[in-house]
Amino acid sequence: MPKKVDHQERRTLIADALMRVAADQGLEAVSLRHVAAEAGVSAGMVQHYFRTKDEMMAFALAVVRERSQIRVTEAMAGLGADPSPRLLLRTMIAALLPLDERTRDDGRVALAFLAYTAVRPAAAPSLREDTVRLTGFIASVLPPPNADAAAAGLLALMEGLGVYLLGGQYTAEQALAALDAHLDLLFG
Amino acid sequence: MPKKVDHQERRTLIADALMRVAADQGLEAVSLRHVAAEAGVSAGMVQHYFRTKDEMMAFALAVVRERSQIRVTEAMAGLGADPSPRLLLRTMIAALLPLDERTRDDGRVALAFLAYTAVRPAAAPSLREDTVRLTGFIASVLPPPNADAAAAGLLALMEGLGVYLLGGQYTAEQALAALDAHLDLLFG
Repeated sequence: MPKKVDHQERRTLIADALMRVAADQGLEAVSLRHVAAEAGVSAGMVQHYFRTKDEMMAFALAVVRERSQIRVTEAMAGLGADPSPRLLLRTMIAALLPLDERTRDDGRVALAFLAYTAVRPAAAPSLREDTVRLTGFIASVLPPPNADAAAAGLLALMEGLGVYLLGGQYTAEQALAALDAHLDLLFG
Repeated sequence: MPKKVDHQERRTLIADALMRVAADQGLEAVSLRHVAAEAGVSAGMVQHYFRTKDEMMAFALAVVRERSQIRVTEAMAGLGADPSPRLLLRTMIAALLPLDERTRDDGRVALAFLAYTAVRPAAAPSLREDTVRLTGFIASVLPPPNADAAAAGLLALMEGLGVYLLGGQYTAEQALAALDAHLDLLFG
């Protein structure tokens, strides 16, 4: 009797390999051949689960998004029943910043994806949805007037801090000091 | 008598091709083969001027940096003798943002380079020098106290606005509104 193939397990095996290649060598190094070698399977096997590079890219980003959502949820859960708007935003943004080695790996994948989609905007409708959802939430928590523009600015500041943390231009301390200074201004 | 080779002209020809490949297909598509095809020369010729992919990347970034410095200088020249600190910063940052098609091409190259160096930090000592120089200048113009953290925040906000402009998450109007709202806060 042939062994039953566990598709979910295989897909996870390949996906993990894909994420390791992306985090170690950059998303531009992600290819059928590289991912297959890293997973210890054939290129044909990888192709069975991810047909194109775009599909691999989108999958890597989905993994990164899911992990960030889990980090935010966990961090929020520690805040108790009725946190101040400032503490809520500070906690959410700190949970999304690449401040340690684990989150840096995810951050590198996310940044590579942003660079990839800046050339191929069609590859990333979900990025725009994420942004609308996040700025909407932030605006609902910020003091009026001008909450929409301030929310767009705070999200951009977060993205820029992430880029500079990954590039080594800012230390974790500098990034958090910049975030706190900005929240001081927003909440007066 | 053999024709004298104009090295500067050839280097510029290849460099222009490199920038077109990077802007159209992303920096990850930059390779000896692609650039040679775009420039209409042999791969060996490209290799004579740029020995490695890292050298090509660094050159593309240098071109982008030089163009941004020219844009900033031109924009500043229009400000007259004694602009307010707020107007000075607004003008400088707007000149650095990818707000039109020409600056978007440069912005895509810069973003791809950031993603590349997030995986290979050694490739980008000049990025860290740029950041130190820019935050130093911004801090010298911002009102105390906390000018250092505020300068780091403003630069991060600029970088994030650039990322979202390139990804199509923000329109030019939204990005400038977010910048103005942030400058309102900083200058009270």
